Amino acid sequence: MIKLIVLDVDGTLTDKARKISLNAIENIRKVISNDILVSLVSGNVIPVMFGLKTYIGINGPVFGENGGIMLNNSEITHFFSKNLPKQFLNEISRTTSAREMFTNQWRETSVAFTMDEEDREAVSKKAVEKGLYIVDSKFAWHIMNRGQNKAFAVEYLKKLYDIDNSNILVIGDSDNDLSMFELNVHRASPSNASSSIRNLSEYVSEYPYGNEIGDIFEHYHLL
Amino acid sequence: MIKLIVLDVDGTLTDKARKISLNAIENIRKVISNDILVSLVSGNVIPVMFGLKTYIGINGPVFGENGGIMLNNSEITHFFSKNLPKQFLNEISRTTSAREMFTNQWRETSVAFTMDEEDREAVSKKAVEKGLYIVDSKFAWHIMNRGQNKAFAVEYLKKLYDIDNSNILVIGDSDNDLSMFELNVHRASPSNASSSIRNLSEYVSEYPYGNEIGDIFEHYHLL
Repeated sequence: MIKLIVLDVDGTLTDKARKISLNAIENIRKVISNDILVSLVSGNVIPVMFGLKTYIGINGPVFGENGGIMLNNSEITHFFSKNLPKQFLNEISRTTSAREMFTNQWRETSVAFTMDEEDREAVSKKAVEKGLYIVDSKFAWHIMNRGQNKAFAVEYLKKLYDIDNSNILVIGDSDNDLSMFELNVHRASPSNASSSIRNLSEYVSEYPYGNEIGDIFEHYHLL
Repeated sequence: MIKLIVLDVDGTLTDKARKISLNAIENIRKVISNDILVSLVSGNVIPVMFGLKTYIGINGPVFGENGGIMLNNSEITHFFSKNLPKQFLNEISRTTSAREMFTNQWRETSVAFTMDEEDREAVSKKAVEKGLYIVDSKFAWHIMNRGQNKAFAVEYLKKLYDIDNSNILVIGDSDNDLSMFELNVHRASPSNASSSIRNLSEYVSEYPYGNEIGDIFEHYHLL
């Protein structure tokens, strides 16, 4: 029995241009009216998550920066610091194609950047040497602290609500969702999901970009 | 012929709980696909407006803090400073029921607060003495700089796109929308609009809380 649904946003509730699926919002509101808890966990910044929570009407906490920061009942909790990621971005900005993203002004536990594909491997290796790691949300690269990932957010919610893995359904599409797809929870994805996410899914919908939400909720008898 | 639509958000696209109307989003996307420019002007903070622009797919600039700050093509422009409003909020927090809102951390040209109704008149008078003014968005009280209002945003867009008043349609519901309803542009409102907004409207829809958007667009032959 699913009591908590943890949703990625970009690519999972939205199309490639990041337009949100109205069908997804409609189905999310339906499961919330059925007293199921819904939480969003995204690479985006916390004020954007605050907006999504408000305007969709999400009933659970929302997490930004891939789990590094949480908004719950108008209170913000920082689980990590931005110091090391920021230092590392300054360093690679001088030596590679890495360029800061404009949303960094609202980031508090990580930084986001763009870079040319050819720099990926070297930057990734350097990050690990610094005790950091980089992850691709398909919409940006993110420099994260070790242990800062979406699985951290799911584990936090598990304790907060005192529920079991079998009561949790996670839905995501890309590599920054992998950590939560490695947990022993229910896992579903849209047809546009990356091959690694598809391989780890219990159920892959035939619908993409937010239109999978209703189909997945039906599959798990939540509507 | 309408070329630019300027929309308020809370109470105009949303219900009282601030859940956004899916019907409103659908109709906004339709007029955008008909090559009409749409801009949002709200009392909310600019990262929340960035989120709304992204996830709805708004094609024009978006303004936060009642016109004090604009996001256009990933670039933020500040038209006013937060110094005086912040000083004034510190002062009235010591002597009245005024209490800071948690979204102030993302405000850059104004501050938002709550207060008991009995303090309204005294705080309003003091604000004017300081060269400021307070305005009610129904969702918060805002301390603004003189000249910082939604009409300022509409005038800015008029110049930016070199269009006439007769090409502009504004839609809003509450007293922080009044300044743009005093311009000689097309003006429409939902059935939940305040009486002052209704009195200044060219067209008042019979539908409330976002459901008026399609009706208003039809009234102006935009669909």
